[in-house]
Order: sequence, then C-alpha cells, then structure tokens
Amino acid sequence: MKKLLFFTILSMNIAFAGAQQSDSAVIKSFYNSALSSDTAYNNLEYLCTKIGGRLCGSPQAAAAVEWSKQLLKIMKLDTVYTQSVMVHHWVRGEKETASVASKVHGSMDVHICALGESIGTPADGLTAEIVEVNSLEQLKKLGKKQITGKIVFFNKVMNPTFVNTFEAYGDAYWTRGHGAVEAARYGAVGVVIRSLTLSNDYSVHTGIMRYDTAVTKIPAVAISTKDADMLSEWLKDDYELLFHFKTSCKMYPETESFNVIGEIKGSVHPDEIITIGGHLDAWELGQGAQDDGVGCMHTIEVMRLFKELKIVPQHTIRLVLFMDEECAQRGARKYAAVVKEKKEKQIAAIESDEGGFVPTGFTMDASADTVAMINKWKNLFLPYNIFNFSKGYSGVDVGFLRGQGIPLFGLETDSQRYFISHHGDTDTFDRVNKRELQLGCATIASLVYLIDKDGIK
Amino acid sequence: MKKLLFFTILSMNIAFAGAQQSDSAVIKSFYNSALSSDTAYNNLEYLCTKIGGRLCGSPQAAAAVEWSKQLLKIMKLDTVYTQSVMVHHWVRGEKETASVASKVHGSMDVHICALGESIGTPADGLTAEIVEVNSLEQLKKLGKKQITGKIVFFNKVMNPTFVNTFEAYGDAYWTRGHGAVEAARYGAVGVVIRSLTLSNDYSVHTGIMRYDTAVTKIPAVAISTKDADMLSEWLKDDYELLFHFKTSCKMYPETESFNVIGEIKGSVHPDEIITIGGHLDAWELGQGAQDDGVGCMHTIEVMRLFKELKIVPQHTIRLVLFMDEECAQRGARKYAAVVKEKKEKQIAAIESDEGGFVPTGFTMDASADTVAMINKWKNLFLPYNIFNFSKGYSGVDVGFLRGQGIPLFGLETDSQRYFISHHGDTDTFDRVNKRELQLGCATIASLVYLIDKDGIK
Repeated sequence: MKKLLFFTILSMNIAFAGAQQSDSAVIKSFYNSALSSDTAYNNLEYLCTKIGGRLCGSPQAAAAVEWSKQLLKIMKLDTVYTQSVMVHHWVRGEKETASVASKVHGSMDVHICALGESIGTPADGLTAEIVEVNSLEQLKKLGKKQITGKIVFFNKVMNPTFVNTFEAYGDAYWTRGHGAVEAARYGAVGVVIRSLTLSNDYSVHTGIMRYDTAVTKIPAVAISTKDADMLSEWLKDDYELLFHFKTSCKMYPETESFNVIGEIKGSVHPDEIITIGGHLDAWELGQGAQDDGVGCMHTIEVMRLFKELKIVPQHTIRLVLFMDEECAQRGARKYAAVVKEKKEKQIAAIESDEGGFVPTGFTMDASADTVAMINKWKNLFLPYNIFNFSKGYSGVDVGFLRGQGIPLFGLETDSQRYFISHHGDTDTFDRVNKRELQLGCATIASLVYLIDKDGIK
Repeated sequence: MKKLLFFTILSMNIAFAGAQQSDSAVIKSFYNSALSSDTAYNNLEYLCTKIGGRLCGSPQAAAAVEWSKQLLKIMKLDTVYTQSVMVHHWVRGEKETASVASKVHGSMDVHICALGESIGTPADGLTAEIVEVNSLEQLKKLGKKQITGKIVFFNKVMNPTFVNTFEAYGDAYWTRGHGAVEAARYGAVGVVIRSLTLSNDYSVHTGIMRYDTAVTKIPAVAISTKDADMLSEWLKDDYELLFHFKTSCKMYPETESFNVIGEIKGSVHPDEIITIGGHLDAWELGQGAQDDGVGCMHTIEVMRLFKELKIVPQHTIRLVLFMDEECAQRGARKYAAVVKEKKEKQIAAIESDEGGFVPTGFTMDASADTVAMINKWKNLFLPYNIFNFSKGYSGVDVGFLRGQGIPLFGLETDSQRYFISHHGDTDTFDRVNKRELQLGCATIASLVYLIDKDGIK
C-alpha cells in the first residue's frame, strides 16, 4: 500500500511540473520511479526462471523472442517488430562427464562443460594423458613430440589484480577462444581449459570457442577452478595420469531467429534514432541473468520509464533485443546492415552487456568532442554515484555500427562480481540485486533523455 | 601454485623498488597484494562462522576479543593490548514467537525478533489488539483513547528512492529507536516495528532501542517485511484482530569487556598516531559479517599490508577493534577518554563501519582545509573507482574523538546491499564478496599511507 501511495504522489509531481522541469529533476524522477518499481526485476525473473538459458537456435531462444515481443506490445510501444536472422544451432546434448585416473592418487570425477560450438567426443568419450600449460610459449616449447596424442590442459589463472575484471578476462580469453586450435597444431586430441572465473569453486563456465578450417577440430571443455587446482596438484606427482571426458554436443543446420525491436516514435525527429539494447540470447548452463537478461531489462525499463513519466522524446527511441551475441552476432550484423542500407540517421547507440551491478558510468566509442560534451553532464549523474564517462569500448552488438559515424556507448557497471556468473551454471536470477538493476535502468534512461533533449554535437 | 608464484614476483618487485616508489606505485602494490591474498576473507570466515554473532557481554564477544588479540600477536605487531570497559549485558533468551488471530482471516504465525535491550513479555506472552501507524502524527491523532491497552504496529516502509540507503535508514530509524517510548506515552502495551530493511522477505532485523526513565517500559519487537505487509492487509478488514508475541529477553548486570588494540610503531614520530578500526561486537541474530566483521578485517588487513610490503610508517598506526558499538559505545567512549587524558597527538582516525562492499571513497568529519587537501589525492584513487572524498559523517566509534581537533574519516562503500544484512539473521559470511572486501582493505591502507607520508595540514 505504501508503494502505491508513493507512486501516485510521484506521478502527480511529474504531471504538474510538466515541461518546465530541470534536467536534474527529470533525472531524479527516473531514479525515483525505477527504484520504486519491481517491473524490471519481475520481468527478469520470468525470463530467467520460466524461460531460462536461451542459446540462439534453441526452443528457449524462440520462447524469449515470443515473450519479449508480447511484453513490448503490452507496453504499448508505437511499433513492435522483429528482424529475421539465420543463426547457428549448437546443442550441448547430455550432461558432460569427466574423470581423472592416477596410479599415484587414485581417481576422481571432475566438473566440466563443453565449450560453445565445440565438437563432441566419440560416443564412449576420449581418454588420454594430459599435459598442463599456461602460455603459448610453453605449448611451443613442448612441441609436437610431447603433445601429439595428448589432451592439453590450459590452466591459466585469471589475474586477480586487475581492478576491472574484464581486463583479467581479456588477458585469459585466448585459452577458451583459441586454445583448441593452438593445441591441435601440435597434435593434441582434446583441450581442457580452466573456467574463466575469479571464483574458486566447482562452477563451470562455457563460452564460444573457434576452430580454424586449416587445423583439425578437437573437442574442447572447461573445468571448474577447484578441479583445475586439484588436477594441477596431481600432475606434479604423476605425469602419466589419464584424463577422460565425454561430451555429446553437436552443431545442427542453421535456423531462423529474430532480433526483437520496439520503438517510441520521436515527436520532432521521428527519423532520427537513439538505439538502446542488450542481447536476448544467453548460454544455457545458467539462466542468462547477468549475461544478458539484465541488459534486456535495463533497456526495456527505459521505455517503461519514458511512458510512465509521460516524457515524449523528440527523437525515436528504438529498443533492440539482439539475437545471437554469444555465437556469431548474426543479430547485430543484420541490424547494422539494415541501418546502413536504409541510411538511417542514428544519433547514438547504447548497449548494456556488462551485468546488472551498480552502474558507474558509460564508456564511449566516440569522438573526443563527443566524449567532452558528454562529460559536461557528469554533475547531473554524480548524485547517483555515476562518475566515469571515458573513451573506451561500447559493446559487442552496437559495435557493429562502428564506421557509420554513430557515437556508441556501453553502460559500465561495477565488475567485481561479474565473473562469478559469466557463462556459468552460476548465472542465475538469484544473483541479481534488485536495486542494482534498477539503478542501471535509470542511468541509461537519464543518458537517453539528455541525448534526446540536447543532441550530440 | 599460480598464486604463490604471483606473490613471490610481487614481493620481489616491492623489495627492488624500495623507497623510490611513487605514491601511485605504492598504492598499486596495496591493491595488488590485497587482491591476491585470502587472509582477510579467511579471517572473516573464522570470526563469522566459528565465533558468530557477538553482542557485548556475551561469551562470543569474549571469544572474539581473545581470538583477535591472538591474531594481532601472531601478526607480530609492535604492541598488542586491550582496554577494559564495562558493557551492557542483554540476552535474547529463547527464540521469539508471534502470531496473529483474526475472526475474518484465520490465524498465522509471523517472524519476529526482540529489539536490542527491550524488556521481555510476561512468561506466557502478550496478547492485545494491534493498531497500525506510520508516523508520530498518526500516533498523536489516535491518542490515548484508541491506543491504551493495545500494541502499536509501526509499519514505516524504508524509502527506496534514497540512492544512499543509509539515508533511508536514518529516515525510518525512529520507529526502532524511539517507537516504544512514543507508543507507551499513549498507553500502548507493546510495539511491533517493521524490520528496517529494503528487502521484502521473512528476515528479521534487530538493533538497539531506547527507553525513557519517565515512561513505562513496554516490550518491543521487529517483524519481517513480508509479515508486516500481510498484517497490514489483514488489518484493513479486521481492526479487532489479536496480535500475540512472546519474548524472554532480559538485561543482566554489566560485565567487563575489552577494546583490542595493536600498533605498528612510527619510525619518526612514534607518539603521533593514526587510529584505524571497526567494531568487534555484533548483533547475534546473524554472524556480524557486514556489521562489522568486515570493518575489523579491513583494518587488520591494513596492518598486514604494511608489514607484507615492508612499508615502515613514520607515525604510529594504531588499530582499534572497538567493543560495544551496538549498545552503549562503551569502547569508543573509553578510547576517546584515554586519548584526551593522555593528550595523545592523533593526526587522523579512520573507521570502517558501512559494510564490506565496493569502496567508493571517504566521508570526512574534518575542516574544509583538510577536505580540500585530501581531495588533491583523488587522482591516485580514481584507477580503483574511488571517487568520493566529501565532508560528512565519519563513524559512531571514531565520532567520540570529535572535539579533540582530530580529522575523522569513514570508509564509504556502495550501500545498495547493506540493509539486506544489517542487524538481521541475514548478516552472514556468505553475503560478503571477497574482492569487494579486499578492495576496501587496500583503499584504507592507501589513505593511511598518504596521511603518514604527507601529513594532514
């Protein structure tokens, strides 16, 4: 009851104040409304717990497309439509199993998962000696003689001293992205990579891996960090221990899927567009909560906030829930191609794909002039602890708009807890904090409002 | 193994660089070392899970004193001693029970806990009609006629729109702190307050309440927010419903306890002191993790970092684990009295009692000149997302040094999740994130280093 009352008062304030409101008052109203509404959080719960993980090509991804399209229609956006794309269709199959057999230590089962788009093992699994390496130099030094016929175990620990944990991810990413190709060049029959997480636990973390058409494809899996540590310990005393794993993942023919798009039409410049979005697909080990259910909810909530507060934008605000960020970015490629083909005037594109934690600012893939201009708004954001407006990376999906002269923005959130969840069986709804999510929604809404009102020079 | 190797390299770097290191390099070394060490986190786990909640006067508080004293001795601090204080000794007794009986809705059990230092109910509990109010004005309006003989239900919802959740707490605090006195003035026989949390769940949140010697003492309890909402719903249809609760809490005679103190002696000015600390006591419903096990660990870790990195301070760094912050602040009063009596020269006092979340800065109870001076260091902290150095509140314990001309600092951390745990059965170790804790340690160490090196003008 308290909440309802509060809402009513809030709405009245907005209605009375009307167009005379200062920027700071409008921004305050975004935060007030976001922090008083469970809508984004409840929608996220539905997406995560009723639909769940939703890798492109899966029935869950199709369900997420259908559900989000209906949601935008219920919100009465001016236009709601989809954009068809053909996507990869990789299926994990049965739950993966793995074990270690040592003459010195005995045997133990370990927690693994197939890496995304990996081939599976033979039906009865793959068993071989395993050799630990932590760098490409080490791999090269061992050479074909010591690697042929073996499994390579990339046990690179994510460096905890990077304050921005995405840098630690970037530093270790090659093991997952390219480890299989590199190991296969030396005759390896499989690769096991240490899960890319800063947690020390039994969670497993998948993510896309790449093959090279010129190099033999070998099966690739991730192992939990605790198991990786134990395996490393055992290997110290027993170089001949056997690693066995079994995966039944498989790539199927490409299938159709969709970007889901909704717009609030601009009252003055309907043909000039501010794109906002996150990606709807997600790895299926978890529920796709932090990656990137929250990005979808952040940006859907921006639309709700504009409507709730009766703020009519001058430019069209276009929400895009991108399909297939995780595998081949077919949704983002398609969107960028259509923008180019139609010669659309896009004045900004804002992505949220760094988690639903406390927002800290925006990183901008934009000109120095634009960065300087945006920094003039900094004082409007400081009351909400939003302090960083720096040149940098925007996001994978809006990144495809690069080269079309569009200022690109990425919502930056606190990164300390991101790699607990990222691509893991741990990426679940219960790890999202409601207030942190709400603050992100209001932060994007505020930037959209300012860009819409003042433009970008 | 990776971690050990990393550590060795780190230590070597420090040793080689020696005294020539720039401030930014020293600060980086604090963050590197903190982010690479599990010490603070593991110590917190011990304090929380092996000793647990530790209200002043309790056996757990005594165990925490003993354990932390030993810990500081093992760390080989230059001096380790305790400071005796007499503290309140309130005991919760049996787990509290409560239920609602309505002719319209039936009956339900609800989750409650006694407020700190409340008297208990009669042995067979207290049963009465219950009347909901949300403000002192409402209470006054109802008056003695409608309140005498009844239980008053303060159902004030913490305002979610305060971005800094401590402001929402401050706004609703009166219900817990003074509700019983205010209700008793109008003849109430008991009070039930809505738990002071921003969560909507079945957790219960205690905390100190005060009586007035001129007003009849009545039993006071907190109810979970979900139960409060339901009770409020039921009351809409049934003003005559009966609320029953039973508590057996009791105040015992005062008992002896201790501040635990450890020092690294200054090499140049051993008689000039930088005090750092948190409070060792904690409400016993949970484990005293965020309030304030983390504050103890933040500041103990500062000592470890100085020793690990072989940084010898010019001034004495004194760690104080204050006893009895939660009830009567006897530890802080004693410490301030001794500082005054000995005419100690204290150049700064820094407290951590706002949780172990991502640090954002320091609030300073200090002169404008000091605030301006500290702000000159801001750029050294920005790489760690520490951006706020503003005039404000320091902390309850160091606050007793006010009036002695000592600049007082409070570590500010992100407040979004603090009131999930605060004083609740939810204040448990598993809600502390290791990296967030580590960042807080390095942040305080960095400030101590700069104050020690450059002084405070």
